[in-house]
Amino acid sequence: MNTARTALRALGRSYASVHNSPGKPSTEYNSASGGHAEHGWTFHRKCFVPEVHDFLKNLFLDQDLIPLPFQRVLAPLIAKRRTPKIEEQYSAIGGGSPILRYTKFQGEAMCALLDELSPESAPHKSYVAFRYARPLTDAACEEMKKDGVKRAVAFTQYPQYSCSTTGSSLNELFRQGTRGAIGQGVEWSVIDRWGTHPGFVEAVAQRVEAALQKFPPERRKDAVLLFSAHSLPMEIVNRGDPYVPEVSATVERVMDRLGHSNPYRVVWQSQVGPRAWMGPQTIDALKGLSRLGRKDAVLVPIAFTSDHIETLYELDHEYAREAEEKLGMEVHRAESLNESPVFIRALADIVSKHLNDYSSGSIGPTSVQMGLRCPGCTNTTCSQQKNWFAKSGLA
Amino acid sequence: MNTARTALRALGRSYASVHNSPGKPSTEYNSASGGHAEHGWTFHRKCFVPEVHDFLKNLFLDQDLIPLPFQRVLAPLIAKRRTPKIEEQYSAIGGGSPILRYTKFQGEAMCALLDELSPESAPHKSYVAFRYARPLTDAACEEMKKDGVKRAVAFTQYPQYSCSTTGSSLNELFRQGTRGAIGQGVEWSVIDRWGTHPGFVEAVAQRVEAALQKFPPERRKDAVLLFSAHSLPMEIVNRGDPYVPEVSATVERVMDRLGHSNPYRVVWQSQVGPRAWMGPQTIDALKGLSRLGRKDAVLVPIAFTSDHIETLYELDHEYAREAEEKLGMEVHRAESLNESPVFIRALADIVSKHLNDYSSGSIGPTSVQMGLRCPGCTNTTCSQQKNWFAKSGLA
Repeated sequence: MNTARTALRALGRSYASVHNSPGKPSTEYNSASGGHAEHGWTFHRKCFVPEVHDFLKNLFLDQDLIPLPFQRVLAPLIAKRRTPKIEEQYSAIGGGSPILRYTKFQGEAMCALLDELSPESAPHKSYVAFRYARPLTDAACEEMKKDGVKRAVAFTQYPQYSCSTTGSSLNELFRQGTRGAIGQGVEWSVIDRWGTHPGFVEAVAQRVEAALQKFPPERRKDAVLLFSAHSLPMEIVNRGDPYVPEVSATVERVMDRLGHSNPYRVVWQSQVGPRAWMGPQTIDALKGLSRLGRKDAVLVPIAFTSDHIETLYELDHEYAREAEEKLGMEVHRAESLNESPVFIRALADIVSKHLNDYSSGSIGPTSVQMGLRCPGCTNTTCSQQKNWFAKSGLA
Repeated sequence: MNTARTALRALGRSYASVHNSPGKPSTEYNSASGGHAEHGWTFHRKCFVPEVHDFLKNLFLDQDLIPLPFQRVLAPLIAKRRTPKIEEQYSAIGGGSPILRYTKFQGEAMCALLDELSPESAPHKSYVAFRYARPLTDAACEEMKKDGVKRAVAFTQYPQYSCSTTGSSLNELFRQGTRGAIGQGVEWSVIDRWGTHPGFVEAVAQRVEAALQKFPPERRKDAVLLFSAHSLPMEIVNRGDPYVPEVSATVERVMDRLGHSNPYRVVWQSQVGPRAWMGPQTIDALKGLSRLGRKDAVLVPIAFTSDHIETLYELDHEYAREAEEKLGMEVHRAESLNESPVFIRALADIVSKHLNDYSSGSIGPTSVQMGLRCPGCTNTTCSQQKNWFAKSGLA
């Protein structure tokens, strides 16, 4: 992937000169990059401690994610109760999450590449739209409206699709779009999943290889790779959410690229509460490996694309430290993609292909798979949202 | 895949002349092709109704699968109680399962191809070793001993690995091997999973394409593909069984090969009892699709490679019929691989590559992944079995 790296560097000079011209095609960069604080999903930005409560409140207010009785009353109460614990976690990782910084960096670097890869749709501009933390989706929409954007791509930053992540973000974008927050006549298309894109797979594989290098050569090939993704309640899995199969597919592609050099498992992190969640849990897997005499492991974040509280606090502070201190293991975490040039090149390739395929009419505004609601879905917003995007948001 | 088909036909003439020469390399074909009757696993052969009870008893006696208290007493009792219902199902599909016939056919056709692909290890002979129905593993071992086999490959017929299927079969083979049932000095290697082999993926994709042809052209692209695999209790999933991720990976590869022509879901069938199983359930998915207004679906068996009670009774008699009669849907089942020449070519390719890689020393007797027990495993036989095969069964 030297090509990608070279290309990125060559284009790096133009980062500062990316603009959006009103009325010209523009790329909306709908960030929804993995993560959560307490209940499962989506916390992303350099979030200073005082913002934790607002984030939690927004999360518990999300009816697409957690339908609660008396939601407007309950959400602030639950948020208030949980805030201190999460504040502590943010303090432990230096007072906030770097997710907004990375998401902005990735979006800007991607756009610089895109201007060269797809000159016909240049200039491109990325907007970050978080679901529960600032910049929220409504703020992103307002900015797009101010810029006079007429062509936009909703590009999820979750590689694998779940109704609780990308689905919820698209529902919010649909609500903002239909209430006119983005302006009139904006033509939308959606990149809804990209978990097996070769560039993404390559970027992850390189991070795994770098982590393996930290073990002494004679122990390297026996280190166990634990690909860790945010878990999902079985209730959501059982209604047909595509996330578990898609995360599994990413892992298989990465292992294929690695030539199956090491033994591995797919594991699931960040479960909370009494409900049944998809397993095995990441921390249980580490304990199990230790019990079986496996003392070397690599933790690979596979559904997050940049560092945030689940990687910096949960994987590094909680799991890896516990495994080392209490279980006598040597655990390395594969670095998050963050500023990986291979990853940024992949993002640009994904968008470039999408724009070309859409222009040539070989794909529609949404993927075939996005058109299908989960068999157990009872959220009518999902139906309206899919219909709206299928008509490019122009209906 | 015309090449494969032509090659197979060209080699077909030699089917009848496949022999095993004592003392020469030979291929053991450890059949464990998916399926179950009542509690989850492994029922395969032209099984006439009187044999149902013995099958069920063997299944409930399997400590690798279902550890029960007082197993030797309980197993026959449970088997007796469940026999009538399963007998009825076998009567409904014509008095028995075609699984032994297909497994034999596949093994023999594969060996004919192998004799041409790997002349250096010819002649090859396949042996069928079922786990709960005849021919049982001990009978297969006895036949191999009689033939004087000295080089053998345990080739699971489950494309994706689960401790409850391939794992249990390997444990049984290990027990037979260490008690000398196969004779002394037999050199073993293992093909333990092959769910993403391009030939297997191609064979499944062709069956899906054929099923889609049954819909009127204007409705074809909207038909939903439900890839249905035998479910697994969450207790097994949560200890780190690799089956769910591997089934998911197969599905992704098939969809990739199909160019994502249709919307799809991975679904899980054959749950019984009160425990929590992996979902969504196949029948619930059909009902959900109907509720959402999706009336066309294809059921694709993705973890079984030949017809048996789960395809012929459960998918065809139960699910598809219920969907058509009660839900007004049009449901077609993708044909099982059965005598697919593309599939048989894939089997031969898998073994041929395995034999070459093993001879050249580029792989060991077992895969890297097979060496890792599930993090939650407490079955010491798994550990002994893996060690035994890792030394080619020669320790």
